[in-house]
Amino acid sequence: MSLAKYIAFEGLEGCGKSTHVKRLATRLNAVMTREPGGTAIGSMLRNILIDPTNTNLSPRTEALLMAADRAQHISELIAPALARGQHVVSDRSVYSSLAYQGYGRQQNLVELKRLNNWAIDGLWPDLVIYIDVPLEILIERLKKRELDRFEREDSAFFERIDAGFRAMAADDPPRWLIIDGTPPKDELEKIISKKLLERLGI
Amino acid sequence: MSLAKYIAFEGLEGCGKSTHVKRLATRLNAVMTREPGGTAIGSMLRNILIDPTNTNLSPRTEALLMAADRAQHISELIAPALARGQHVVSDRSVYSSLAYQGYGRQQNLVELKRLNNWAIDGLWPDLVIYIDVPLEILIERLKKRELDRFEREDSAFFERIDAGFRAMAADDPPRWLIIDGTPPKDELEKIISKKLLERLGI
Repeated sequence: MSLAKYIAFEGLEGCGKSTHVKRLATRLNAVMTREPGGTAIGSMLRNILIDPTNTNLSPRTEALLMAADRAQHISELIAPALARGQHVVSDRSVYSSLAYQGYGRQQNLVELKRLNNWAIDGLWPDLVIYIDVPLEILIERLKKRELDRFEREDSAFFERIDAGFRAMAADDPPRWLIIDGTPPKDELEKIISKKLLERLGI
Repeated sequence: MSLAKYIAFEGLEGCGKSTHVKRLATRLNAVMTREPGGTAIGSMLRNILIDPTNTNLSPRTEALLMAADRAQHISELIAPALARGQHVVSDRSVYSSLAYQGYGRQQNLVELKRLNNWAIDGLWPDLVIYIDVPLEILIERLKKRELDRFEREDSAFFERIDAGFRAMAADDPPRWLIIDGTPPKDELEKIISKKLLERLGI
């Protein structure tokens, strides 16, 4: 069995996870990737999914496109990397499908979980690091960006997603780390490193 | 309840179904459409799915993209058309997912059926017309075309799909018509009209 670990960062838009994905991937010499968009096919799907002009995408279409991105990502990139012994650090994972399409869009969680488990062929992250930043701070940060299709949703949508992530973490503590995302980057990086050593020994 | 009917044509590549989709839709003043590609989102997905350069699309990704196309098609176009009382005639339907991704790609049929039933929100065609043309004739016809990603598959793939369509028809006779696709177009059109009158009274 491979000792390589699959680590996903999760969090709301603007929480700063991309920075820590980069820093951790560099430190671990891991494959750094993201969902959606971690493969060539995934990039095409990401463009459809985040394009704010696609206003009539049905909730099930959105969920299926996200699942398609994850299926391709797992089979083309993540599973092969782990099989050759390399760690994987990903900006988002299948848990974002449950949080966004399930809790956010309020679709049936049992159906979504089954669908996504099939899409990823049962390969869930070994560890999920949830970067926890209060919604008020995130909303301030997003004011400085050009917003994509998801970022344009209202704050109730993001509140449901945040609650969803917390519910999933509470339901499966060994797999989750909730980390306060408000300290400065360098300090946060040290906290993540320390926690990772405790949890995974890496 | 609406009296509008949802009629799908199915068959292998080159069987001539597109001609009869057009003729029947015109005669019934129906919404004429197709899968994949019946909506704007679907067109983008169709391009990814049929592009022969996308050689590494995983079987599950393919199934999920097809399901995404069907989800959008049902919610944006088919369900609203039926609700306002208009017939729908479609070139392919959810049954192609079961035939191609299930029987053709040999993926788990129970999982695929569940996934697709969720994608289409339980809205299956009222009638499926399978245009039956021997594989040898179809292979000759395809020699004259620029082949897409599916059309490049070997004959064993199409034999499995043909067997799959027949198995589904045998399992659900009231929903299926298997029609010999070898007569000339005008004659075939008359046969289809006659059978449709017997089955649906239209």
